[in-house]
Amino acid sequence: MKLVRDQGVTAPLGFRAAGIAAGIKASGKSDLALVFNEGPEYAAAGVFTTNKVKAAPVRWSEQVLKSAALRAVILNSGGANACTGPAGFQDTHATAEKVAAELSNWGTETGAIEVAVCSTGLIGDRLPMDKVLAGVTEIVHEMAGGLSGGTDAAYAIMTTDTVPKQAALHHDGGWNVGGMAKGAGMLAPALATMLVVLTTDVKVSAAQLDTALRRATARTFDRLDVDGATSTNDTVLLLSSCASEKVPTQEELDAAILAVCDDLAEQLMADAEGVTKRIVITVRGAASEEDALIGARTIARDSLVKTALFGSDPNWGRVLAAIGIAPITLDPDTIMVSFNGSPVCVDGMGAEGAREVDLSGADIVVDVDLKVGDATASIRTTDLSHGYVEENSAYSS
Amino acid sequence: MKLVRDQGVTAPLGFRAAGIAAGIKASGKSDLALVFNEGPEYAAAGVFTTNKVKAAPVRWSEQVLKSAALRAVILNSGGANACTGPAGFQDTHATAEKVAAELSNWGTETGAIEVAVCSTGLIGDRLPMDKVLAGVTEIVHEMAGGLSGGTDAAYAIMTTDTVPKQAALHHDGGWNVGGMAKGAGMLAPALATMLVVLTTDVKVSAAQLDTALRRATARTFDRLDVDGATSTNDTVLLLSSCASEKVPTQEELDAAILAVCDDLAEQLMADAEGVTKRIVITVRGAASEEDALIGARTIARDSLVKTALFGSDPNWGRVLAAIGIAPITLDPDTIMVSFNGSPVCVDGMGAEGAREVDLSGADIVVDVDLKVGDATASIRTTDLSHGYVEENSAYSS
Repeated sequence: MKLVRDQGVTAPLGFRAAGIAAGIKASGKSDLALVFNEGPEYAAAGVFTTNKVKAAPVRWSEQVLKSAALRAVILNSGGANACTGPAGFQDTHATAEKVAAELSNWGTETGAIEVAVCSTGLIGDRLPMDKVLAGVTEIVHEMAGGLSGGTDAAYAIMTTDTVPKQAALHHDGGWNVGGMAKGAGMLAPALATMLVVLTTDVKVSAAQLDTALRRATARTFDRLDVDGATSTNDTVLLLSSCASEKVPTQEELDAAILAVCDDLAEQLMADAEGVTKRIVITVRGAASEEDALIGARTIARDSLVKTALFGSDPNWGRVLAAIGIAPITLDPDTIMVSFNGSPVCVDGMGAEGAREVDLSGADIVVDVDLKVGDATASIRTTDLSHGYVEENSAYSS
Repeated sequence: MKLVRDQGVTAPLGFRAAGIAAGIKASGKSDLALVFNEGPEYAAAGVFTTNKVKAAPVRWSEQVLKSAALRAVILNSGGANACTGPAGFQDTHATAEKVAAELSNWGTETGAIEVAVCSTGLIGDRLPMDKVLAGVTEIVHEMAGGLSGGTDAAYAIMTTDTVPKQAALHHDGGWNVGGMAKGAGMLAPALATMLVVLTTDVKVSAAQLDTALRRATARTFDRLDVDGATSTNDTVLLLSSCASEKVPTQEELDAAILAVCDDLAEQLMADAEGVTKRIVITVRGAASEEDALIGARTIARDSLVKTALFGSDPNWGRVLAAIGIAPITLDPDTIMVSFNGSPVCVDGMGAEGAREVDLSGADIVVDVDLKVGDATASIRTTDLSHGYVEENSAYSS
């Protein structure tokens, strides 16, 4: 297997993509992306936000996925189309209809029910539908099979992201997986503010795709937690074209999808809003994997831990205070904590030299051993910086 | 009833207090406080942090309160004495022993088991016990019955607080309640990083005090949530001297204790670390009070809501996204939100003029009506500002 970052959704055989500036964003930056599956097959799977307040495109795409097949995904930045009521849902529907009509004109008979829609941006405003619909006409003509189409699409879904995120895996068995992602804030469990489209050219069933996707997201995007906030628009889609005609085992497919998701999750963390530290928090010695995950997530969400790490301050007491409120099995007198491999707390007490551990680098590893069991889990997170506050205090203005 | 803020724990009859600089803080600021109950009775109640990682003084004071009586409370700032192991617990014990011995020398036969201990400051370091013990000798001689003793004590428990917090209530029935509080960060459910000592001169049982205290804290300190962090040291104590010989009903006592706690909670919110906005979040129309409380707390903890309000940005979509992840009964299509009385979201959609609501003042009222039931609850919180990040990124250095 070979993983690269300069290729994305068009790395697998049988996919075209494009990204254009349709005028949805006031800035004039690119804001509309299309991923098109040329087939010969169209199996697909998706996972969506667990937020009860779901954006219109999420409600639409959940319906569409019931058929377990997709011809295309249309994505826009510049507006989330969330909290926009029945009219907002109608806008999503109209967008899918328009994509289907243009693809049919272009020569591929397509129904709206084969088109997923993803949106990202400010919650609460209607999209400028004249621009979206005109953009759809344009983007269907723009779409290209080369790698540049995938890269253009990855740019068009960016909001506060500073760089596009792509990854592609070329399997020794002659098949491929590609992906693109956006998301920089509102990143939390149950998926981040995150739009991810994954593509592959293998010949597998929709059920196999679904299994691989759920296994991968549970261990990657679900374990990325920047600020505990879960978006109204989170969507991860996996499309297969079958164009390579290769048939991997479920294990091979799982491993490949996991590898691409893991790489994209790492890219999301590295570009999170205001990030100055990339932090991996591992809880080991837990009574169960669930406990380990809850413990790691509780630490990852603690504002006092996150501000201390922003300040490169090895204030390990805050890690203890944070895990102490996690609803998990623990004994405060056996907890061991290390920062970047240096023990700072042993048996619930400070270790020699704990206040002198150097956390000035950009990567910080926090390791907590509860010593009550054998289970381990990790969460990727970031620090709470002035940049995070700055970026989020004036997002809608 | 009359509530004033220039009097504290010595406002009721039968209490002396003092605050001194014992040298625990490197800054030389005052750092040791004593509250002494002259009797004739000593009934007391307490509530403590729910954090599983409990500081030594919390473990000690929980034991002491089993007798439901207290002669004195000794409090220090400059160190939390948390995560300090058996030696730290021994330090707390020795402090209580020293207070008991000095009070006995002074003429009031006292046992260590009648002395509660509270500590606040950095987690993980042992206290300078030579300074603490010498300070105890000094402070017992310093303690005075006038109001200035209470004020000195309120100053001595400050950490990142910028002002001391006191409140006193003079009841028309001829009895009094007084209190002091500290706490500015790590303020969360299950009590804030908060030390609070309340005093009263009524003649009631320890069980009555306990009832009044639990009812009051559940509606005040437990509903103050600055950053979702719960300290290892939270302690709220209520001591009664019986010196007024007045016997209020439980309802009268409940109302008075609630009023003082409510006022202290408001003072804690107003002085929270980095606060630029004082925010009250109310969720009404909930299926249960529990649901309303969880909903309000979820919004109060959301970093994206808190940064938007820091920026005076009426980004109501973030309130919808936040409550959507709360594990409560709701229908996204009926939610109504108003900011400072102006509707910004009606039936889950943006209201006319929602983006123009003025949030530039220091006080912000967020009101969410779920319209699924009749229950209501409010949480006090603050914004997430540059000041919060600044103050917490270098606390231990």
